[in-house]
Amino acid sequence: MADFSVSDCAHMAQALHLAERGLYTAHPNPMVGCVLVRDDEVIGEGWHEAAGKPHAEVNALSAAGDKASGAIAYVTLEPCSHHGKTPPCTEALIAAGVAEVVVGLEDPNPKVNGQGLEALVKAGIKTRVGLMRGEVTTLLSGFLSRLTRGRPFVRLKMACSIDGCIAMASGESQWITGPEARADVQRLRARSGAILTGIGTVLADDPSFTVRDAALDTHGRQPVRVVLDNGLRMPLSAEMLALPGDTLIYCIDDEKRQPLVDAGAEVIKVDAVDDLVSAAAVLGDLAYRDVNDVLVEAGPTLAGNLISNNLVDELVIYQAPHIMGSETLGMFRTPTWTELSDRMALAITDLRQVGTDTRITARLTG
Amino acid sequence: MADFSVSDCAHMAQALHLAERGLYTAHPNPMVGCVLVRDDEVIGEGWHEAAGKPHAEVNALSAAGDKASGAIAYVTLEPCSHHGKTPPCTEALIAAGVAEVVVGLEDPNPKVNGQGLEALVKAGIKTRVGLMRGEVTTLLSGFLSRLTRGRPFVRLKMACSIDGCIAMASGESQWITGPEARADVQRLRARSGAILTGIGTVLADDPSFTVRDAALDTHGRQPVRVVLDNGLRMPLSAEMLALPGDTLIYCIDDEKRQPLVDAGAEVIKVDAVDDLVSAAAVLGDLAYRDVNDVLVEAGPTLAGNLISNNLVDELVIYQAPHIMGSETLGMFRTPTWTELSDRMALAITDLRQVGTDTRITARLTG
Repeated sequence: MADFSVSDCAHMAQALHLAERGLYTAHPNPMVGCVLVRDDEVIGEGWHEAAGKPHAEVNALSAAGDKASGAIAYVTLEPCSHHGKTPPCTEALIAAGVAEVVVGLEDPNPKVNGQGLEALVKAGIKTRVGLMRGEVTTLLSGFLSRLTRGRPFVRLKMACSIDGCIAMASGESQWITGPEARADVQRLRARSGAILTGIGTVLADDPSFTVRDAALDTHGRQPVRVVLDNGLRMPLSAEMLALPGDTLIYCIDDEKRQPLVDAGAEVIKVDAVDDLVSAAAVLGDLAYRDVNDVLVEAGPTLAGNLISNNLVDELVIYQAPHIMGSETLGMFRTPTWTELSDRMALAITDLRQVGTDTRITARLTG
Repeated sequence: MADFSVSDCAHMAQALHLAERGLYTAHPNPMVGCVLVRDDEVIGEGWHEAAGKPHAEVNALSAAGDKASGAIAYVTLEPCSHHGKTPPCTEALIAAGVAEVVVGLEDPNPKVNGQGLEALVKAGIKTRVGLMRGEVTTLLSGFLSRLTRGRPFVRLKMACSIDGCIAMASGESQWITGPEARADVQRLRARSGAILTGIGTVLADDPSFTVRDAALDTHGRQPVRVVLDNGLRMPLSAEMLALPGDTLIYCIDDEKRQPLVDAGAEVIKVDAVDDLVSAAAVLGDLAYRDVNDVLVEAGPTLAGNLISNNLVDELVIYQAPHIMGSETLGMFRTPTWTELSDRMALAITDLRQVGTDTRITARLTG
């Protein structure tokens, strides 16, 4: 691994901060940030706002102007070397006379994948790679998952009481968590390409799954609503069909497809696993549709099914400070887990108070 | 309220730290700390170690010797004015020529209850009361509960998975939480006068409920084991009957009393509520036996019963980073809670990592 100084770290950290500004808009492109430094002075900063708009490097070079010659560029992700919606960033860096490029992470996109770095080296530019690789990898978990695993990063959100209940046995469940937790869920939605749920949740709650917080600028984009609906029980009156943005309905029997298509939904027939829509197939199709991040907002059946099938990457639990007791529904339906050894281990990555609720973020480690 | 300076706060905070040293030994006396200060210099410190041993004030005066004349004494609890197992502390403070006494909390003990302060004022000593009253009240929650409510402070400990499961439906439950959490439970036991459980837990797990951590010096005292056992199903072979320390068995039908008494237990018949041992009656009897703090280590039935009857003051949950799923037992059996409005609200007072588990400490606020 290359050597990095404290000053290198500070500049890359700033580039990461800049990259994060694209959290709600860069989709499906990766969030990227760039800082240009000459003589220890920051002379230009840039980030990638949205597909079709200039890349982070180009924005930083524009800000730096003539000063860029001889500068060090800190870029969170390997600069692109291909003509996409915009010209290659490597050409811009070379043309500006940048002396060195420090990169956080190689771009796994097969159109880049080392060729960006190669083009820079060929032009006589010094390169160092791997600074804050872990942080960049975490920030781009959705983008990287889509490119390297062929499925989106799956984030499962649950709201429950401190004793793990999501609703009373009767189904009564409104407002288990507080307004701050619900505002936080808006942020999870805004950063996601799709919201996934099961038909049971649609029939019980008729959710809209939209980003409603005006403070979250997604450039008007709404995450795609995705419903797993084996036999197309989706009502034509479902709220989400009437809202801006797309609704995808995955089924295994599409006999009742036409009225739903007429109502504006896209209906996709996929393989069945145990007489249920194959969640893995759905995730593969969503990746094909350029979805990086999926937020699952579902009941215990779908949540348990995804967990059991190792299809969840991150769990976000909002735990309300209440005891709901025994006449309730639990978080995960896992009928095949009958022994303690069947349980699933988690690694908690973040634990904090959100309003009066506790938010637990965890990776599933088996 | 009296005026207090930053220096006053620092000295009382130190007195509180000293008081805490009696956490495992002062029982059933209150933990008390005392700091003597003259010309802004600490000249003596003391704390109360155990019943029959000198009080905090006397230890601090001994440490200060001649220097105590004209000093300010910071005491977490009002000095006693009565002859108990030791002579009154007010007399010692007066004899030493202390100029001022700053007190955290008035002693609700009817034998003191303002008379200590009165004796000091009569002797021409300035007094100020109420510094860090909240902290002292929290530290002495057990002692205060016994004296003012006639029942111990009840702390309910539960170990569960992140989805609120305490065992598999089969009963399989060993080692849900990690070694650090189990070590922490040893500390909860060591600070308690009694460990309370139900006969179901005894029959299922045959627990010993002893303090086994050699690093916790309780002066050899073991918390009293308390079993709620309606019809005396307690087996004579139960582990706890063979261990050092007392076992109390509360029942509503004491026909089978004699063999248990012969085995070393004390059997107490109390009132029934809904054909069950009245937990309120048990707690009243434990207070009468000078128990300040009760730790409940029980299954979902007794835990739910105590919660439902508002008999739990503090909840300590050790949450393991696992998902156990649906084929499990939940934390609280509450058959009468059928609507969301039946739930019980908590105020989280502490949230921290203990090993790989999360410890949640909460007061029950209804």
